[in-house]
Amino acid sequence: MLQSKLFTKTIKDAPKDEVSLNAQLLIRGGFIDKLTAGIYSYLPLGLRTLKKIQEIVREEMNAIDGQEILMPALTPKENWDVTERWDKIDVLFKLKSQTEKEYALGATHEEIVTPLVKKFVNSYKDLPVAVYQIQDKFRDELRAKSGILRGREFNMKDLYSFHANEEDFKSYYEKSKKAYLNIYKRCGLDAKIVEADGGVFSKFSHEFQVFTQFGEDTIKYCSSCGFAQNSEICDLKEGDNCPNCEGKIKDEKAIEVGNIFPLKTRFPDAFEFKYIDDKGKQQDVTMGCYGIGPSRMMGSIVEVHHDDNGIVWPEAVAPYKVHLLALGNDDKVMEESAKLYAQLEKAGVEVLYDDRDDSAGVKFSDSDLLGLPYRIVVSKKTLAENQVELKKRSEEKASFVELNKIIDLLK
Amino acid sequence: MLQSKLFTKTIKDAPKDEVSLNAQLLIRGGFIDKLTAGIYSYLPLGLRTLKKIQEIVREEMNAIDGQEILMPALTPKENWDVTERWDKIDVLFKLKSQTEKEYALGATHEEIVTPLVKKFVNSYKDLPVAVYQIQDKFRDELRAKSGILRGREFNMKDLYSFHANEEDFKSYYEKSKKAYLNIYKRCGLDAKIVEADGGVFSKFSHEFQVFTQFGEDTIKYCSSCGFAQNSEICDLKEGDNCPNCEGKIKDEKAIEVGNIFPLKTRFPDAFEFKYIDDKGKQQDVTMGCYGIGPSRMMGSIVEVHHDDNGIVWPEAVAPYKVHLLALGNDDKVMEESAKLYAQLEKAGVEVLYDDRDDSAGVKFSDSDLLGLPYRIVVSKKTLAENQVELKKRSEEKASFVELNKIIDLLK
Repeated sequence: MLQSKLFTKTIKDAPKDEVSLNAQLLIRGGFIDKLTAGIYSYLPLGLRTLKKIQEIVREEMNAIDGQEILMPALTPKENWDVTERWDKIDVLFKLKSQTEKEYALGATHEEIVTPLVKKFVNSYKDLPVAVYQIQDKFRDELRAKSGILRGREFNMKDLYSFHANEEDFKSYYEKSKKAYLNIYKRCGLDAKIVEADGGVFSKFSHEFQVFTQFGEDTIKYCSSCGFAQNSEICDLKEGDNCPNCEGKIKDEKAIEVGNIFPLKTRFPDAFEFKYIDDKGKQQDVTMGCYGIGPSRMMGSIVEVHHDDNGIVWPEAVAPYKVHLLALGNDDKVMEESAKLYAQLEKAGVEVLYDDRDDSAGVKFSDSDLLGLPYRIVVSKKTLAENQVELKKRSEEKASFVELNKIIDLLK
Repeated sequence: MLQSKLFTKTIKDAPKDEVSLNAQLLIRGGFIDKLTAGIYSYLPLGLRTLKKIQEIVREEMNAIDGQEILMPALTPKENWDVTERWDKIDVLFKLKSQTEKEYALGATHEEIVTPLVKKFVNSYKDLPVAVYQIQDKFRDELRAKSGILRGREFNMKDLYSFHANEEDFKSYYEKSKKAYLNIYKRCGLDAKIVEADGGVFSKFSHEFQVFTQFGEDTIKYCSSCGFAQNSEICDLKEGDNCPNCEGKIKDEKAIEVGNIFPLKTRFPDAFEFKYIDDKGKQQDVTMGCYGIGPSRMMGSIVEVHHDDNGIVWPEAVAPYKVHLLALGNDDKVMEESAKLYAQLEKAGVEVLYDDRDDSAGVKFSDSDLLGLPYRIVVSKKTLAENQVELKKRSEEKASFVELNKIIDLLK
């Protein structure tokens, strides 16, 4: 992509009411735009990153036999009445049609997916089923001050699994933990599995938490054995003995980047969803749900991977791999840069080429703010040696590389 | 994909209140599910087709320098007040937050995209800009009886272009027509460009209409010269002389599958969006919008491409290219079919493998209903000759192909 043609430029200041670090950096970089509190547009650079996260999530969900579907955002009141959650979920956005039909905007989709799956499952032979969607969800949050970590409209992957028995559910639940950890690792996040409130039906649910001083949650954590509970369900204090080992409990601030939840028969029962076993007997269906927010992950990645000058994208989720900077409005520099740009594109390297007529200072500071993993600088000075300067965004030191070797190095 | 594992099966009868042909066939095939009037879920097979259409649209929009973004569905009332459309658009779904903030669900995004683009455009050097999104839109339609041709929630690609002058706009507008025709052609639709109401500011807008007896619109059409106007703006009657040539006007029923609209300065003016020209003078910004609904296209494709037995997907948008049927519960048949399935997948051929323990009758009728372009049958009879039976869904006649030649034929 030519930066001179890119829709969006970097912005000097984020909106004054934007207090979260992730939104400040993402807005200044032109990745997202704030429409109103808790509601953001994804601009070309930001959408590229969001899609890369979604694709990683998709691959890992497909790998555990998840089948992708897409349910509506407009969900009828009747479905929520069945589970008696219409009035219980306090963040449901509700609306009426001209004909007085009542809908909620999907904040979660148990009420839609359960009767949907019921339509296609009769016998034990039809189970297990795991379906997921990647879709925008809506929550009427009272406060929305965390940028894209907690929006009123946000992107979500929600998977729902249905099983013939508790044992099959448990085995899938463990498989999903591994898939989730793969996702975080691939996206450059170090997430810990944390026990959290299991609701009325289960002892625990499990959250995936990324430890960072900017987190909203507090985790009671033992670094010796990995014991970790959300402080909401944990009576231990910092310095207490770990209940599992010799270690000591420490408080860790953290961002929740996913959670998985055993729902037992709660929703299948509400929708009278049973199956017939191999002896012809009607049996309960056991259900789990598995949530991960690609937009929240994008915000978390920024909270974790940045420095004073801007974002430091992990390669797998960077909008482009390489930022190519042509310095100085010099014919030879522009010519060699354009040639290199074409070669990189031809080699399948995703590259943003800063071909703008701007100063070195502007280009360097924009490049740091945008945070692409590799920066290549072409200038009169580097060309005099038949070289380019190569610098990783995550490292201080630059090196010089022969012009004819740079493509192979970055392929 | 193994059909035994596929989420969704074919369904004998579509819901009784579902009168549209596209929804009947798509529901019976397990492509979509009706949640409530005008609101559908996309199931694995249907979502694959929807995504293929979206990807074709995306490629053609990128080819005319459209940059993909994603704007929110929740749009604040303030933006609609600026253009005075809050009360004028009668299909806006409106809602309030707990804190009494008012939103509309995006039915169209001029009110969002115009102030967004304004933030990044100051000088003539920043123009033109063309941005688009592929996103669900919401319209509070009084009646929703046309399946996925006209939903309350539906998928939409909307592109908006901004230009320094009318001439540049016009040239882009013509380019967009070609891109749209490419899209239809690639999706197996023969769309005609039809003049339609241009609103207050322009003489005409342009619709893309697919002629079919099942269409909602009537087009006054001259097959000699291609003159075509929506009957809403045309006083001509069937049999009248064409105003452009010697031909005669004919009435054609048609489905609208896209429209493009010159918006002139309507929205830029409302948001005080101007630019500075090369002489330092403030100038008007000229705008166009370009809509195409991937979900509506999917419905249109079904309306046009079907027979008494089911859907006949054009190859570019079929959920899978090949339907592989193993007939008869015979070890050798299952073994050879599984081998062929693995070989097809390895060769990159998208294949749905009907490995279910069902009768030939069930498998053939399901296969016709699902409508994948190529059907391969493996049976004891074909294997006796070291062959498979190959049939195109769009043709009556099957042929026999050597087992070791089928992969190369379908690659």
